Amino acid sequence: MGNFPGHIIPGLIFFFFGLYYAVLISLVLLRGQQFLFSSLPPWDKGPQSWRQKFPIEGLLKVVGCIPSFLGEFFYPFGANRLAIIDWDDPERPFLHHSIWQHATMYTFFIISGLVDIVSQGWLAKRQIKLEQAALTLAFFGTALLLTSHIQGKDALEVQGHLLLVLPNILIVLVMVIELWFPAQAVLWIFKIWMVLLFGSWLIHLGFIIYYPITGHPWRADKPGDIMFLTTFFCWHLILTALLVAGVYGLCSLWHHWYPHQQKVMSTGYQLCPTDSSPEERKKLMVEVN
Amino acid sequence: MGNFPGHIIPGLIFFFFGLYYAVLISLVLLRGQQFLFSSLPPWDKGPQSWRQKFPIEGLLKVVGCIPSFLGEFFYPFGANRLAIIDWDDPERPFLHHSIWQHATMYTFFIISGLVDIVSQGWLAKRQIKLEQAALTLAFFGTALLLTSHIQGKDALEVQGHLLLVLPNILIVLVMVIELWFPAQAVLWIFKIWMVLLFGSWLIHLGFIIYYPITGHPWRADKPGDIMFLTTFFCWHLILTALLVAGVYGLCSLWHHWYPHQQKVMSTGYQLCPTDSSPEERKKLMVEVN
Amino acid sequence: MGNFPGHIIPGLIFFFFGLYYAVLISLVLLRGQQFLFSSLPPWDKGPQSWRQKFPIEGLLKVVGCIPSFLGEFFYPFGANRLAIIDWDDPERPFLHHSIWQHATMYTFFIISGLVDIVSQGWLAKRQIKLEQAALTLAFFGTALLLTSHIQGKDALEVQGHLLLVLPNILIVLVMVIELWFPAQAVLWIFKIWMVLLFGSWLIHLGFIIYYPITGHPWRADKPGDIMFLTTFFCWHLILTALLVAGVYGLCSLWHHWYPHQQKVMSTGYQLCPTDSSPEERKKLMVEVN
Amino acid sequence: MGNFPGHIIPGLIFFFFGLYYAVLISLVLLRGQQFLFSSLPPWDKGPQSWRQKFPIEGLLKVVGCIPSFLGEFFYPFGANRLAIIDWDDPERPFLHHSIWQHATMYTFFIISGLVDIVSQGWLAKRQIKLEQAALTLAFFGTALLLTSHIQGKDALEVQGHLLLVLPNILIVLVMVIELWFPAQAVLWIFKIWMVLLFGSWLIHLGFIIYYPITGHPWRADKPGDIMFLTTFFCWHLILTALLVAGVYGLCSLWHHWYPHQQKVMSTGYQLCPTDSSPEERKKLMVEVN
Repeated sequence: MGNFPGHIIPGLIFFFFGLYYAVLISLVLLRGQQFLFSSLPPWDKGPQSWRQKFPIEGLLKVVGCIPSFLGEFFYPFGANRLAIIDWDDPERPFLHHSIWQHATMYTFFIISGLVDIVSQGWLAKRQIKLEQAALTLAFFGTALLLTSHIQGKDALEVQGHLLLVLPNILIVLVMVIELWFPAQAVLWIFKIWMVLLFGSWLIHLGFIIYYPITGHPWRADKPGDIMFLTTFFCWHLILTALLVAGVYGLCSLWHHWYPHQQKVMSTGYQLCPTDSSPEERKKLMVEVN
Repeated sequence: MGNFPGHIIPGLIFFFFGLYYAVLISLVLLRGQQFLFSSLPPWDKGPQSWRQKFPIEGLLKVVGCIPSFLGEFFYPFGANRLAIIDWDDPERPFLHHSIWQHATMYTFFIISGLVDIVSQGWLAKRQIKLEQAALTLAFFGTALLLTSHIQGKDALEVQGHLLLVLPNILIVLVMVIELWFPAQAVLWIFKIWMVLLFGSWLIHLGFIIYYPITGHPWRADKPGDIMFLTTFFCWHLILTALLVAGVYGLCSLWHHWYPHQQKVMSTGYQLCPTDSSPEERKKLMVEVN
Repeated sequence: MGNFPGHIIPGLIFFFFGLYYAVLISLVLLRGQQFLFSSLPPWDKGPQSWRQKFPIEGLLKVVGCIPSFLGEFFYPFGANRLAIIDWDDPERPFLHHSIWQHATMYTFFIISGLVDIVSQGWLAKRQIKLEQAALTLAFFGTALLLTSHIQGKDALEVQGHLLLVLPNILIVLVMVIELWFPAQAVLWIFKIWMVLLFGSWLIHLGFIIYYPITGHPWRADKPGDIMFLTTFFCWHLILTALLVAGVYGLCSLWHHWYPHQQKVMSTGYQLCPTDSSPEERKKLMVEVN
Repeated sequence: MGNFPGHIIPGLIFFFFGLYYAVLISLVLLRGQQFLFSSLPPWDKGPQSWRQKFPIEGLLKVVGCIPSFLGEFFYPFGANRLAIIDWDDPERPFLHHSIWQHATMYTFFIISGLVDIVSQGWLAKRQIKLEQAALTLAFFGTALLLTSHIQGKDALEVQGHLLLVLPNILIVLVMVIELWFPAQAVLWIFKIWMVLLFGSWLIHLGFIIYYPITGHPWRADKPGDIMFLTTFFCWHLILTALLVAGVYGLCSLWHHWYPHQQKVMSTGYQLCPTDSSPEERKKLMVEVN
């Protein structure tokens, strides 16, 4: 991660995850469903599309993070940065501190992925709260590591990383609230927005630190440069909000024009029929939690 | 904004917005209504005053902010401060960092105004939560930019701006809470108070930085000067609280002396008749949200 | 306040206010009442003791604060420290910054007292929330001024004042929560405890700064001295907790031995008879708020 | 505590307390009980195992803390570190500031233990909220002292102790929430996890400060060393989470294989029979609180 692709690739992953969920949640809201996830195990769901049979998101997390994890230590090929301590040096200094922090971040998300796989694929009853907690832990650990990542960096990287921690902490906060209040559409949308912001800002940060478009590095000793960091961050705030609105708009159009195709795509979700009584919904809610 | 009128004009705008809402909310409370806004689209409301036909607040926001936005870049006439980077300088330094921060603040409020106009004028059902969210974003972005505005300033401006961020953050907090609990009179009053405080302190800050009444600039190296900043801020706290109380008192008198005139003025509001059953009110509440 | 009695006297006032409320709340809890205050105006309460006829607490606040307020400016007699700016000095420096901060603190509590008097003595229905809000504002303003009071002080006074701000902020937080959830016995007790802590720590701080018992001033350049500040603060935390427990214990004994005398003393309080149905209590609760 | 065993021993105590509660809560959850504690006094519980007759946890706290408390002052034997002020030195400096901070921490936990003993052994009705409050105070006081413990330490110890304060503060936060919402399984598990983390990190901190495995002290002037602190802390975060999951897994196996033995062990707990109606449970809940 301590280089340009190390910022761009995770940034893109977060960004596309955010986009994917933006579509998913837009459709869920347009259909008037109350829950994002079904709590039934795969084999109870009857004939379904392949999406429901496999814990696809968990697999994606694991498959996406393991190469990045290994790349930290062994890329370029032939490198080996696994050593924590340089035992040959009489002072025994620590080695590869940034790499081990990145590897720890990937570990958090791999664990979250494994929890998803076990919960969705193996358990008799999907443990949505457990999956949520594991993902919350992943984001919390990332926030903690990002905060410590600032050690010994200049004011510019400090401010850039603090602005990255801001959506990160808000994601953690929302996910903790969702452990108790999962059926809050406002929180779903806010979380997606923050994930998109996190991804897009991470990409921008990669450009700022490694490929400044002017060809000249940003300077930490100029307050103007640090002020522009926040200004650009605010533009990300606005643009990702517009992106969420745009995705919702497109999904809304699609929802009105192709009501049939959706049905096919949505079979995996537990539809809350609009004519169900409040009692049934409550029962469903209790079940899901 | 980096000059005297740049602080006074937005300060006055916030102050008068606060006053306007103080009157509005006082009347709503005196009439025992439960909601500030009607969720019906304009064409369903029957014969109404002009106020209901147009999304007046949204238009005011847009009309008030666009000149300020343009003024940042093009005032005095002939100026052009749109450039972000000075491409002629071999070091490619950033330009106009303060101006782009102010412009971003205005952008947030213009977006909030546009959302108001779309929601109130065009949508089949007014999306009050969306309007609220857009305004919350505007205040949140302002707080973020104000915090970064401090970069490279002296202790006096830092303290002055931090005291400005305080009501700003409290406004954001209250507006986030109002997304879930909109019918809280205490929160309405608190929010108005904070908007008045934000406006009046912004005006005072303009005087402190650009036109100190003694003719001598305040000095950041004297703790006494910084202490007086907080003392004056506390006086604003008290005076704006008294102002809210005074407005409520005047509205209360008016409410008792001219009960008829109000009727005419209030037609745009969804009256919650005092004889409605709790069930009806609940239904209304659900509808509004 | 910038001297020994200026710390001891307000400290004692807070401490005895805390003790008084500790007794009051212990009795309320022992009698199984649900509310601290009656919301009826004095003239509707029938034959009562003198305590109910006068807004005694409001008067105490005003009577206690006005001499302190005046003392800041005019004590010792002949002094006059009202001037904010020294107009004779060509630099026009600020004068008496600490005194104006103390005076502002007293002003907050005088306002709270006036609100109490108006609400309890003059209004047709006692506005408990308004009184609560005014007192919250007083504590909030005090916290704000204490935070700014640190400007230009050494590490020792900074730490001492920050520890003073801690109970202060917790009082504000609890009072804000109480605006919505007033019938929480745990919060009542916690608030009293914090008021006692605030008072006792303020007294101790007066001794530390002006009359150190060793005869030698504490030294800000020694970490050990600053660590002992926190240690002593923790002892205050423990001792005031024991004090609250002790007051409750004594009241409990008194409650069991003299059940008759209490009746007389408690006439001003709205007894929640133990045989009242939950519906009645709820109605009462709504009334009170 | 200012030495290696002073960090290892309390660390182990917290760790084993955490493990013990992990087992307890796993069984409570597996049996579908709603409450951790019975609110009946011992003599009303009928024939029970010895565990219910004695306030075992309170005694453990007191018995575990008093030797540590005394050890701070009198170990190695012959030492006497009770003096706060060195009266012989003309400057009258403070003495033993760290020791008094440690002793104060132990005092908080001794008080919590005494409250447990009194509440469980002597009172007619066990005051669970009071016990909870006393333990919350103990953790809060510890957090306060840890924060002040940093005074005059280098960046490495500051970061190490701040990471220790993090689970500490989260424990306080959860315990405050539990005063109002005691029957939240998620909070129980989270609290146990944080106690385990607190213990294991305290042990690791002892090694880092006094017995670094490389034989070379960590260096506060190298950002890499401080970054590895956070990395290791994240590993503790992961490993203690896996530990909680492992304990739950083992208890789950045991619960399925030896359903009879549990019965015997669990007699002290107030079983919530699965066929009880929600009303009964609610009643129980009210009783317990």
